[in-house]
Amino acid sequence: MVKKLKVGVAGLGTVGLQTVCQLLKNREQIIQKAGVELALTAVADPQIDSDRKAMLDNQSCYSDAADMVEQEELDLLVELIGGVDPAGKIIHQALNRGIDVVTANKELLAKQGSSFFELSRKGEGRLRFEAAVGGSIPIIRTIREALVGVELDSIYGIINGTTNYILSCMADRGLEFDKALQEARHKGFAEADPTADVEGFDSAHKMTILAELAFGINISPDAVYTEGIKGITPMILEDARQLGYSIKLLGIAKKFNHRVDVRVHPTLIPQKSALAAVTGEYNAVYLKGSQLGSSMLYGKGAGGPSTATAVISDLVSLAAQKTNSTPAVYYSWEKTRLLPTEQLVSCYYLRLSAVDRPGVLARVTEILGRHHISIETVIQRGRSADRLVPVVLTTHEAREGAMQAALEEISQLEDIGQTPKFVRIEEGFEQE
Amino acid sequence: MVKKLKVGVAGLGTVGLQTVCQLLKNREQIIQKAGVELALTAVADPQIDSDRKAMLDNQSCYSDAADMVEQEELDLLVELIGGVDPAGKIIHQALNRGIDVVTANKELLAKQGSSFFELSRKGEGRLRFEAAVGGSIPIIRTIREALVGVELDSIYGIINGTTNYILSCMADRGLEFDKALQEARHKGFAEADPTADVEGFDSAHKMTILAELAFGINISPDAVYTEGIKGITPMILEDARQLGYSIKLLGIAKKFNHRVDVRVHPTLIPQKSALAAVTGEYNAVYLKGSQLGSSMLYGKGAGGPSTATAVISDLVSLAAQKTNSTPAVYYSWEKTRLLPTEQLVSCYYLRLSAVDRPGVLARVTEILGRHHISIETVIQRGRSADRLVPVVLTTHEAREGAMQAALEEISQLEDIGQTPKFVRIEEGFEQE
Repeated sequence: MVKKLKVGVAGLGTVGLQTVCQLLKNREQIIQKAGVELALTAVADPQIDSDRKAMLDNQSCYSDAADMVEQEELDLLVELIGGVDPAGKIIHQALNRGIDVVTANKELLAKQGSSFFELSRKGEGRLRFEAAVGGSIPIIRTIREALVGVELDSIYGIINGTTNYILSCMADRGLEFDKALQEARHKGFAEADPTADVEGFDSAHKMTILAELAFGINISPDAVYTEGIKGITPMILEDARQLGYSIKLLGIAKKFNHRVDVRVHPTLIPQKSALAAVTGEYNAVYLKGSQLGSSMLYGKGAGGPSTATAVISDLVSLAAQKTNSTPAVYYSWEKTRLLPTEQLVSCYYLRLSAVDRPGVLARVTEILGRHHISIETVIQRGRSADRLVPVVLTTHEAREGAMQAALEEISQLEDIGQTPKFVRIEEGFEQE
Repeated sequence: MVKKLKVGVAGLGTVGLQTVCQLLKNREQIIQKAGVELALTAVADPQIDSDRKAMLDNQSCYSDAADMVEQEELDLLVELIGGVDPAGKIIHQALNRGIDVVTANKELLAKQGSSFFELSRKGEGRLRFEAAVGGSIPIIRTIREALVGVELDSIYGIINGTTNYILSCMADRGLEFDKALQEARHKGFAEADPTADVEGFDSAHKMTILAELAFGINISPDAVYTEGIKGITPMILEDARQLGYSIKLLGIAKKFNHRVDVRVHPTLIPQKSALAAVTGEYNAVYLKGSQLGSSMLYGKGAGGPSTATAVISDLVSLAAQKTNSTPAVYYSWEKTRLLPTEQLVSCYYLRLSAVDRPGVLARVTEILGRHHISIETVIQRGRSADRLVPVVLTTHEAREGAMQAALEEISQLEDIGQTPKFVRIEEGFEQE
């Protein structure tokens, strides 16, 4: 009943492997959610080693992606070879045969996008490229689809994780560029040859694509002013900090009076701006438009899993279009149920009014302890014999039911005025 | 050549009027970008006054939306009546007739979504509702489409602009709740009857929808623990601040072990978290998943123009699906050109090494002044007779060409060591 589409993946690097992995692992989930099956049929890579073969079920393996496109009757091709050649030829070949294509190839799109966009518009094969910019950040579909009715004025992007990681290390810990690059390499945030990242070319390719989509014009990446981060020293970062700024490798695209200003360079931005808070390997794109106000998308940039996520989303979206299917809202047939309120687990802030007499706090903490609620901080404000003074407490994680029962008991204490106030605390945020 | 689809808008409140306005104003732009014409054919509202009539061209006006759906041969219906009845009946009627529907009706979707979702999946008419949550933030399509391959663990949302505005006023300026609410009303960020916002019901409806989409289960909004912001006082906000927290009305949805925890309540979150920086009428949704890491979408929440933007995006997307058209990448046929680098305008940070002798700074500033570059700040660090000391300058906006020429001259000065370093400054960020 569920329609099945044949998918071929060309290029088994980090993102390619992750895409294969997610296609195989999330097969059922994708069927449930999207109402269509993405059947991995074939892969192509000049070097498919035994580790990679072991991941596969019984997919055909090709050393030449062109052969795969020629011989398999694919519905969808994923191009993750990278670079201009032979990736460009293979995409042409696929689109010409009416095969839909998903690519993450920002260099190719920046340099030769126009030929693919035109081919895709005229022919049978469609082209999607969410993974080309911003990893898991859905910036392409946001500009093309969500903001289709909006005239954008400007785009600011931190769209290269390697350089953002390096600049963050330099700013936070005073590291020199070389030292920070070395650390980025160790953590897997920089490639063996980091030139394209460090010199800003990767960001320039991505900004070319974003500016083309946002402003509807054809731009050559060679015409985009591009400056990398090698000139930035800890001293300059410290100057910036003292002046109230952070330094980011920023992609900028602005439109005014039929002129488009596109560039990539290290930039001082106010410390308090939302973009300045984007640190480490994270990416973000900040958009401005008159109807829109300002808007920002933020998330993990490059990296296998998050980029593969974007590839899968493009595949599903092309598959839905091809089969005319609508995604399911209720796809979970597990026994999933809402958690009853009393079983919620949270940390708490508590404010009591207590008579400032010895033993009152002891009684409060005894009640909390009896309900298995442990205290993180206590602040007793002011001292005033025999008058009510505020006591502020925060707790470690506790069950809501226990907290409610403890509060009930505490409010019965004779030295406690009013009903205690409590507010839940959430700590689970990365990137702080 | 361009396909034309007939659009009817039911409900001419703030968002309805803005939708009509954007459909009429951006008609050409939508045709260029999307390759399909959205032709506004009819509107329906019990009270269409003369001001509203004046906005229209020659669209038919109905007082009853059901009549419009019955009599016009619509391709697309926009439901912006709000509330459960009669909006629900009209959506049913349209979907049953095979008309695609766009709605912003979070209450209806939270309460009766299941019947519409099923109808839309079975029948001819499709249903889209990007505008129901988060105004201009494309959170619905991000969860349904961009993250279709991702298992989400948790969602945190600041999804009610009214309460976020009120809490921001209270936290920043120590205002009492009533005073802050009054101000929110004055600024148009609170309705005459703010109950649904202030008591958290609006957020609960939105979280119900997000949790349903993210976790694939059917949830009743009545089962969602909901607590508004009336209990929050400036004193509690001050306690929180001293403990290192901000307080936000947070929607929370988490999944673990077949249990889903969905709730809305005031919450202490770390001051340094990205969500804490979301102030005023802005909304944000923070997502976490194992393959995804953390991700955030941020932008203007409610409000006519931004919500209408989301309605238009749904219309375009349904229209593209209906007509099987692909959006154009190069749609701008204006004479738009890239700005040459020397014509860029920016503020600058400059670092010079200068011999600490009287008159050196005067010569530098004279050169800058001659090139029409005005200085904002000068920091001269340390004093050391006849040795090079650093001078840090920031400038007001200046042309890049002028800056380069001035730098050339400055580096020729005999009391200046090395080549001066300069980095561009960007200030144009709201929400700081």
